[in-house]
Amino acid sequence: MRLFDGGRVPNARRVRVFLAEKGINVPMVPTDLGRMDHKSAEFTARNPLQRVPVLELDDGVHLTESVAICRYFEELQPEPPLFGTGARERAFVEMWNRRVELELYLAVQAAFRHTHPAMAEREVPQVPAWGEANRPRALAMMALIDQQLADKTYLVGENFSIADITLLCTVDFLKPAKLAMPENLEHLRRWHQLVSSRPSAAA
Amino acid sequence: MRLFDGGRVPNARRVRVFLAEKGINVPMVPTDLGRMDHKSAEFTARNPLQRVPVLELDDGVHLTESVAICRYFEELQPEPPLFGTGARERAFVEMWNRRVELELYLAVQAAFRHTHPAMAEREVPQVPAWGEANRPRALAMMALIDQQLADKTYLVGENFSIADITLLCTVDFLKPAKLAMPENLEHLRRWHQLVSSRPSAAA
Repeated sequence: MRLFDGGRVPNARRVRVFLAEKGINVPMVPTDLGRMDHKSAEFTARNPLQRVPVLELDDGVHLTESVAICRYFEELQPEPPLFGTGARERAFVEMWNRRVELELYLAVQAAFRHTHPAMAEREVPQVPAWGEANRPRALAMMALIDQQLADKTYLVGENFSIADITLLCTVDFLKPAKLAMPENLEHLRRWHQLVSSRPSAAA
Repeated sequence: MRLFDGGRVPNARRVRVFLAEKGINVPMVPTDLGRMDHKSAEFTARNPLQRVPVLELDDGVHLTESVAICRYFEELQPEPPLFGTGARERAFVEMWNRRVELELYLAVQAAFRHTHPAMAEREVPQVPAWGEANRPRALAMMALIDQQLADKTYLVGENFSIADITLLCTVDFLKPAKLAMPENLEHLRRWHQLVSSRPSAAA
């Protein structure tokens, strides 16, 4: 088994933080996105969507989508549980992981890809109006997450989960997207300090 | 337990098809999106994101995100398995469900919301250039899915899964988005006839 990693992109980091929390070591193959390695014929054969990360299984089959890769490791090694415990907690982990992904991460990603000059040649067509439309959405979603965190240690309660990993990788992606966490979101700020202090955050 | 349903919108249908496949009956509360019921204060208290479907649990807590709702029912009643069986199949169901959602469903949704005249007052700001940019993406993803289906009955192999439900609800959403399944995608066409003939497709 080996993992085609992608350096600083949020989805690659998401899997690395997940593996660090599990204490799992997987041989990593760096993929240089700056050099467009992910557009090569070799890489495209692994993932026709030309995205990292990609997990190559021992029989040579390729598993893509960061959450699918994380879920596979959760099945192989259930402890510590990062997708929740029991039907109810697992459902709310799924809900919050998706809310963060679909409402915040995709908004931040759109702001980055569609307004950053460095992306003009990569995101074709770049639609600046779409990038701008996503800034207020990202801010609104951060405010909603701040409320959720008002009486909870982590997004879904007292247990750290993949939803927190997704949120961490998203919050740390605000800066390249020229967005910032509003000063008044004190619960989100407290949460961010807490999860950033975990050893896995360095992954 | 009761389900706040949303009629013809793809995510509401996705949960209904899932429940029909499981043979589970849940009391349904219709939510009239045309009348903007989902924007009411009452509905917003259930889901601050103002989206359907929403599952109200017996203790009054609300679970949102259609896949989180489906996963909860999978836990409550595992048979027939719709998220796959075993670590490996479950990982590939997750992968394909996400590929269909993120690469096809979101593209079709963007084409619909950002170019359909009926959405001009609801999708603010409507960014037609973004809607148009998503049409070729939707077509490219359908071609990739067609290849995947060349030697498989369903998306992940011989077992019908939630990934097929997501794809069914997406393909049937092409028309309102003024998109069509290309004639030459024979495997996707065969698959669509097959899954449309299941009783659950009427849900």
